[in-house]
Amino acid sequence: MESDRLARQVDFLVEADKLKSIIRRTPLSDGSRLENSAEHSWHLALAALVLREHAPADLDLGRALELVVVHDLVEIDAGDTFAYDPAGHETKAERERAAADRLFGLLPPDQAAYFHERWEEFEGQSTTAARFANALDRVQALFQNMSAGGGSWASYGVTRAQVITRMAPVEAALPTVWPYVLDVIERFCASGAISSDAP
Amino acid sequence: MESDRLARQVDFLVEADKLKSIIRRTPLSDGSRLENSAEHSWHLALAALVLREHAPADLDLGRALELVVVHDLVEIDAGDTFAYDPAGHETKAERERAAADRLFGLLPPDQAAYFHERWEEFEGQSTTAARFANALDRVQALFQNMSAGGGSWASYGVTRAQVITRMAPVEAALPTVWPYVLDVIERFCASGAISSDAP
Repeated sequence: MESDRLARQVDFLVEADKLKSIIRRTPLSDGSRLENSAEHSWHLALAALVLREHAPADLDLGRALELVVVHDLVEIDAGDTFAYDPAGHETKAERERAAADRLFGLLPPDQAAYFHERWEEFEGQSTTAARFANALDRVQALFQNMSAGGGSWASYGVTRAQVITRMAPVEAALPTVWPYVLDVIERFCASGAISSDAP
Repeated sequence: MESDRLARQVDFLVEADKLKSIIRRTPLSDGSRLENSAEHSWHLALAALVLREHAPADLDLGRALELVVVHDLVEIDAGDTFAYDPAGHETKAERERAAADRLFGLLPPDQAAYFHERWEEFEGQSTTAARFANALDRVQALFQNMSAGGGSWASYGVTRAQVITRMAPVEAALPTVWPYVLDVIERFCASGAISSDAP
């Protein structure tokens, strides 16, 4: 019984390895290749440690770390939905729900419930930890595109209005980071990497 | 002043991106390529959530997550030292100390101290969280090699005695996982992926 429990835990960890093969639209900082969702998730966890002082004082950092580690696992089945793909977002919730059921269902039932709870907390955006994790997800992509000289903004012809909408959650979740975000957007509009006009 | 602090935090996060280009000797579970240290660090954080019940009851899970997120950053300068490379281990401590000084020194001084503390806690192996994080580091590599049909054991002619020595910290830190580890080792000795004889 106990050894069956461990076998299910190991099976889940081996299956989760596939997140390393889910490719995002954002590049590495040096632009050498696109990043995958596993290394991206690690980067968010590191950003949580570095940027916590910009979050509201009631932040539970340990909880936020759990959320960023878990939040992208559903992409193993559902794929990474590009931030600036409206059609993909229409079916995202349904695809990700089915993915959560299959993936977390590999675990013993009590642990499946634990992972469902964490993923739903991130998706629900109703706790400080979830809003902090989400804001990190937004600014990490901004830092990557910034360092790579435009990244997915330039590659996909993204407009200023689209980037502002995408970054909007940062204003409330990381208020002291928001002016920095706006400054980066204006700089990359000026350089032409972000389109200044309506599409 | 405040904006200089944020600029240093962002510089550190951009520099940390280089961990995604540090290549380990262990493959992905499907054997398709070698894994990098950033995605490996994420996998350890996930393993912490899944395997916590196998650790002593005084485990501080949030602390363990911090340790696994931080523990490999020094490889950006020092490189990944292969587990079965005695010569590399002779110079490892000195190379990693210099790396920690440079990398953590990119941050504001209070945060540099925070990262030094976490890294030294992992290296010191004197807390439950550090021993748990270290044991995860060992078993994750075992799971990867196991899933890939031999991985770095087969590629580098690693012997049974070497694997047993490498995995030894698991016995005390994750006692209920230890029989599973021994079983995997015996299976891969039987298959020939781990060399049964002295080198």
